[in-house]
Amino acid sequence: MKVTVVKDILDANRRIALQNRQVFDRHGLMVLNLMSSPGAGKTTLLERTIRDLAGEISIGVIEGDIQTSLDSERIERAGATFAHQINTFGACHIDGNMISPVLDQVDLASIDLLVVENVGNLVCPAEFEVGEDHKLVLFSVTEGEDKPHKYPLMFRESVLMLVNKIDLLPHLNVELESIHDAARQVHPEITILDISSQTGEGMNGFYDWLREEVKKKKERGPAGES
Amino acid sequence: MKVTVVKDILDANRRIALQNRQVFDRHGLMVLNLMSSPGAGKTTLLERTIRDLAGEISIGVIEGDIQTSLDSERIERAGATFAHQINTFGACHIDGNMISPVLDQVDLASIDLLVVENVGNLVCPAEFEVGEDHKLVLFSVTEGEDKPHKYPLMFRESVLMLVNKIDLLPHLNVELESIHDAARQVHPEITILDISSQTGEGMNGFYDWLREEVKKKKERGPAGES
Repeated sequence: MKVTVVKDILDANRRIALQNRQVFDRHGLMVLNLMSSPGAGKTTLLERTIRDLAGEISIGVIEGDIQTSLDSERIERAGATFAHQINTFGACHIDGNMISPVLDQVDLASIDLLVVENVGNLVCPAEFEVGEDHKLVLFSVTEGEDKPHKYPLMFRESVLMLVNKIDLLPHLNVELESIHDAARQVHPEITILDISSQTGEGMNGFYDWLREEVKKKKERGPAGES
Repeated sequence: MKVTVVKDILDANRRIALQNRQVFDRHGLMVLNLMSSPGAGKTTLLERTIRDLAGEISIGVIEGDIQTSLDSERIERAGATFAHQINTFGACHIDGNMISPVLDQVDLASIDLLVVENVGNLVCPAEFEVGEDHKLVLFSVTEGEDKPHKYPLMFRESVLMLVNKIDLLPHLNVELESIHDAARQVHPEITILDISSQTGEGMNGFYDWLREEVKKKKERGPAGES
């Protein structure tokens, strides 16, 4: 009985996510679903990215938080083309159904890249699609080497893992190589980039990845709709 | 319809948690529900506590993880009276129903303190009781000052907030006072202790808190059952 309800919810979400995806595809718009633990640095990453790519890639952000609009205010100040806050009021993730009504309220034609910043949570967000092209996991070196094994779905669903706060490595008992190994054990094909969104180290690699993905999606154009 | 299902689940959980609580009370056993983000340092905190209080307070741990038994292995090596691993296989929290069958498999009479180490998640665990006396939130300074506002239920439900990894403060753009203020704004009565379970700084304050709570529960004895 309970399982049936959950399955129905997941099926319904997949249908709605597919509809969102068709809207994104019509715009040739690259959409990323950015996930992490609380405090891994999603908002700081986006602030820096928006500033550094200003005039080159126009970025819109949909912010998911249980409460507050702190993040969308930060994103707006950083110069995003738009920042739209969703408050989930207790829900531990963003799903397709929460994104769908927002798509009428923002100007998708004005951006090259849409980032959905999910609720800070290594569990629930990985279970739901919003209509994204790719899921990304941002992982802070302060979280320790065992997390990919303990939260495998998050790392299996993500095409890219950004390993953040590498400027703190000299002060931690953590090996970067062990984090990479753990992630590759649960997802051998995952792309890994080491960064510090605080100091900027490694960010150019991420920007190149973004440029390439935005370009590929534009080139596919409305054909991606099929 | 969906809301009804959720309410039923929460009601059923509350009933089971109450039954667990009655078992704990019969033993005069202090039970703590330890919650945090992934990687805030719950297991390291428990390892150090178990080692430092060896011969004084006998500690059993029930470990909640989506997958792996890495944590219960670490807890066993630290010298816990027992360490029992629960794998939730996708569930984002530990609830009363998961704890209940474990209580027949461990020797509650052999311990003074039971700690339930919840799944690393700042959202879902706060919504469920397991039959604990107190909820505790462990918060890492690396997570940033805004989290109590963004995840208020976690901080409202907790009687004690341990602010961990204070040894990293010199390397972060974070003010300890701002973290305290944010937590007190969502929960004015919360007790706050600053610690580093890596260096041991501030841990004596936590041990004093534990001693006092274990003693109070023992003194209440089976009367607490009512």
